[in-house]
Amino acid sequence: MTEEQIREKVKAELSPKRFRHVEGVVHTADRLARIHGANPDHARLAAWIHDFCREWPKEKLVQMAKNSNIHEMFFEVTELLHGHIAAAIAPQEFGITDEDVLNASRYHTSGRRNMSLLEKVVYLADALEPGREYPAVEELRKVAEEDLNMALALSFDNTIEYLIKRRHPIFPLTVQARNEIWRVVKDGRVV
Amino acid sequence: MTEEQIREKVKAELSPKRFRHVEGVVHTADRLARIHGANPDHARLAAWIHDFCREWPKEKLVQMAKNSNIHEMFFEVTELLHGHIAAAIAPQEFGITDEDVLNASRYHTSGRRNMSLLEKVVYLADALEPGREYPAVEELRKVAEEDLNMALALSFDNTIEYLIKRRHPIFPLTVQARNEIWRVVKDGRVV
Repeated sequence: MTEEQIREKVKAELSPKRFRHVEGVVHTADRLARIHGANPDHARLAAWIHDFCREWPKEKLVQMAKNSNIHEMFFEVTELLHGHIAAAIAPQEFGITDEDVLNASRYHTSGRRNMSLLEKVVYLADALEPGREYPAVEELRKVAEEDLNMALALSFDNTIEYLIKRRHPIFPLTVQARNEIWRVVKDGRVV
Repeated sequence: MTEEQIREKVKAELSPKRFRHVEGVVHTADRLARIHGANPDHARLAAWIHDFCREWPKEKLVQMAKNSNIHEMFFEVTELLHGHIAAAIAPQEFGITDEDVLNASRYHTSGRRNMSLLEKVVYLADALEPGREYPAVEELRKVAEEDLNMALALSFDNTIEYLIKRRHPIFPLTVQARNEIWRVVKDGRVV
């Protein structure tokens, strides 16, 4: 399937507002990939599909997750399922089989330990695309152009603080990812 | 061993400043236990021993933890080990064998899911004893007298926010405990 065909399929699945968000993520993922040496074609593909199932009913996501070998820990916070389901159906739906692209969809909401360069690019593109508006976003956009790991660490912290303010669940995988990436940033390691 | 003997043993092990903290935790644990219907004798015992190993060298704590069947996840953040080591040596050192008292020592730093009433009392006593000074402490002291679960939820959030500001590791067990207790508070469940 061509990128244009994937774009049309995604457009047909989503509300106009959500589709504008996806277009923003594609744009930002392409840009961050070029700056940091990730594969821009893969970054755009992951960005196109990441929210394909975002508007599906919760029951459908849970049912599909049960049939798709998705780890039970992702059932705790159902907001996390849509990226995993999109990855599960992507081979048939879009002909996408690259594991790195699929993982970038799977972990775009929670993050995880040992994220690949592509996973980091897509995670941050989702958080920083031009349609996002929150107090830290401008600063994070600047940092993301210079230091992907620092931007990721700050973005995780921003997300956790937001979830605390809203008294929403914090996903333990995000906390593990956050602890690890701060260790990397503090050590000055390049990963 | 009598409570007075335990007190003297703890006093001999700690710096004067730390011992004043422990006396504060004993005082607050006793008070919270009486208010909320926990066993005040057990609360004081757990409070006396909870920081017994707090000033031991990190290497000694890690070595003892390896010999004491302590889950490897507690090695990630060594600040968490001292409560577990205190519980491990408490039967021989103080003649304390009550599992609830030992668990209140084990989990006084991290918290965990499904905390017992005593564990909650000791966790909060450690956070709220008269020597503690931080912006939210006065408000938390008031809440703790009225609603132990709400105080626990707010205290977890306060701890996580503090760790984010300091860019210190956040322990995933704390996040799981925090998510669970907010669910309890929001549902209005009494546990």
